[in-house]
Amino acid sequence: MTMTPETVLTNFAGKRVLITGGLGFIGSNLARRLVEHEVTVTLVDSLVPEYGGNLFNIADFKDRVQVNISDVRDEHSMRHLVQGQDYLFNLAGQTSHLDSMQDPYTDLEINCRAQLSILETCRKYNPQIQLVFASTRQLYGKPDYLPVDEKHLLRPVDVNGINKMAGEWYHILYNNVYGIRACALRLTNTYGPRMRIKDARQTFLGVWIRRLLEGRPFEVWDGTQKRDFTYVDDAVDALLMAVVSDDANGKIFNLGGEPVVNLTELATQLIAVNGGGDFEARDFPAERKRIDIGDYFADYRLIQDTLGWRPRVPLSEGLARTLIYFRENLNHYL
Amino acid sequence: MTMTPETVLTNFAGKRVLITGGLGFIGSNLARRLVEHEVTVTLVDSLVPEYGGNLFNIADFKDRVQVNISDVRDEHSMRHLVQGQDYLFNLAGQTSHLDSMQDPYTDLEINCRAQLSILETCRKYNPQIQLVFASTRQLYGKPDYLPVDEKHLLRPVDVNGINKMAGEWYHILYNNVYGIRACALRLTNTYGPRMRIKDARQTFLGVWIRRLLEGRPFEVWDGTQKRDFTYVDDAVDALLMAVVSDDANGKIFNLGGEPVVNLTELATQLIAVNGGGDFEARDFPAERKRIDIGDYFADYRLIQDTLGWRPRVPLSEGLARTLIYFRENLNHYL
Repeated sequence: MTMTPETVLTNFAGKRVLITGGLGFIGSNLARRLVEHEVTVTLVDSLVPEYGGNLFNIADFKDRVQVNISDVRDEHSMRHLVQGQDYLFNLAGQTSHLDSMQDPYTDLEINCRAQLSILETCRKYNPQIQLVFASTRQLYGKPDYLPVDEKHLLRPVDVNGINKMAGEWYHILYNNVYGIRACALRLTNTYGPRMRIKDARQTFLGVWIRRLLEGRPFEVWDGTQKRDFTYVDDAVDALLMAVVSDDANGKIFNLGGEPVVNLTELATQLIAVNGGGDFEARDFPAERKRIDIGDYFADYRLIQDTLGWRPRVPLSEGLARTLIYFRENLNHYL
Repeated sequence: MTMTPETVLTNFAGKRVLITGGLGFIGSNLARRLVEHEVTVTLVDSLVPEYGGNLFNIADFKDRVQVNISDVRDEHSMRHLVQGQDYLFNLAGQTSHLDSMQDPYTDLEINCRAQLSILETCRKYNPQIQLVFASTRQLYGKPDYLPVDEKHLLRPVDVNGINKMAGEWYHILYNNVYGIRACALRLTNTYGPRMRIKDARQTFLGVWIRRLLEGRPFEVWDGTQKRDFTYVDDAVDALLMAVVSDDANGKIFNLGGEPVVNLTELATQLIAVNGGGDFEARDFPAERKRIDIGDYFADYRLIQDTLGWRPRVPLSEGLARTLIYFRENLNHYL
């Protein structure tokens, strides 16, 4: 089967899809894509204020999806919702580094225990389901070499990274042992319309955009660190292609983006695309320096070779689309 | 500092030591060594019947240690016990593959949540403590190459392996971020006096020994798989050397043993040392075959080069000592 981001959607016609974290950044962009193709979409979201859920994300298509406000830690709710679904996009998670260090137990409950519980529910009540899990490049920690491929050792630098590592591996394990078809994508900095920009809980780029659009300078720490960025439409392509393909079962794939830039270059480019603005170069705050990972960018050839995915939206284009979106809708994200 | 298994004990004179899982196989052997050297030793153990705790393990020195029956999941108990300790040997854990698959939540509570809680307690109430965590070679899953060194990817094959992986990394993280001095040893098949032989929950070798001493044949599945075995006195050496050395902080070390043998060779040797007995060669049960890892043996040069540890008790000698112990004390272990 040759699969492209355009043809992959034909797999979903008439199907039932569950998205955890469905009111969040990536979940809502994914849902938006699916509802165009006669898919029955259910969104689960806790709307915990510190996380990414935002009802405005689906405001213009809310009548075409089912919305269920509940927490993935709620086993009974999940047991009901998982039944009868063809596909599960498992995107709900605690993503904040700082929150995970200040309250490691909540991070554990969401990123470990709830994941185990979702998989147990699939095993018991819907073993035919196909899942994809949103993992993160943060598991790698400070790279030994660049670009980082999936053979790189995992050395997480915060509680969040450790718990996400466990959550990812539960998915691989349930695929390998119980035949619950699951795979994981290690997302790098994903950005685009509907991201959380209120603060840096999803990515530092969120708070940069907020301050830029509010006419205030944003802070660039150090600035020499190289990073890659995935535009959300590309991440959605990858999720769709991964969840339907049996070639993905039990596999873990890096996502990536082009071009790789350092943070000063990113800041400069963001300001250029915006047509104005300022940033302030700062030293790393001491408590962040300890867990600084230096440069990171991904080798994404495995998903390219296995599923035919590649990032299609270059950074300049993605930043432009993001700024257009938030310039129009800023007040819904503050 | 040149450190040998003999000289390392001088570090503990007058010190206070806490051992979680202290009534278990390795914990009780460790305690036995320490009480010879004027160390104040406290043993914490839950005595959960499925785990390794056994009061008989310390019967002949029980007046020289403090015994506290409580569970590492009991945060209040641990908070009290951790205070004032110089060293913490963190050995308590759920070790059974099958139990972790049948009840993944209990495994999570013990091997993840309780570990996090112990480390939080150290951070808040005793940041000067030094810890060593008993991890396992099971994190590696099926090896890509042999012998397996610490650079090998982790690919756990059961819930227990995933949770132990998280537990190990919490220790490394608290060392790196908070300066709580901690390291981890990845134990391979550890055996010796006071091991659990009632069933295969600790290692298959336990149930082999039981059946041999009961005069019944034991089962060898497949038999071609190569393994290494660490005699418990060698494991105790490694724990002692790792906990006192600042060169170990934040590090993960494999243990190993000599010689590497396949399971048929091990069975033959065990019977020879015993002076009689039988085994039955069997095919792998289907549900175990799926998670069979094939051959495994460790490259332990990192701990050898860093701390000067090496296994000193060869397999034949260790098996002989083990059989002598259990022949005398069999009824206390059934």
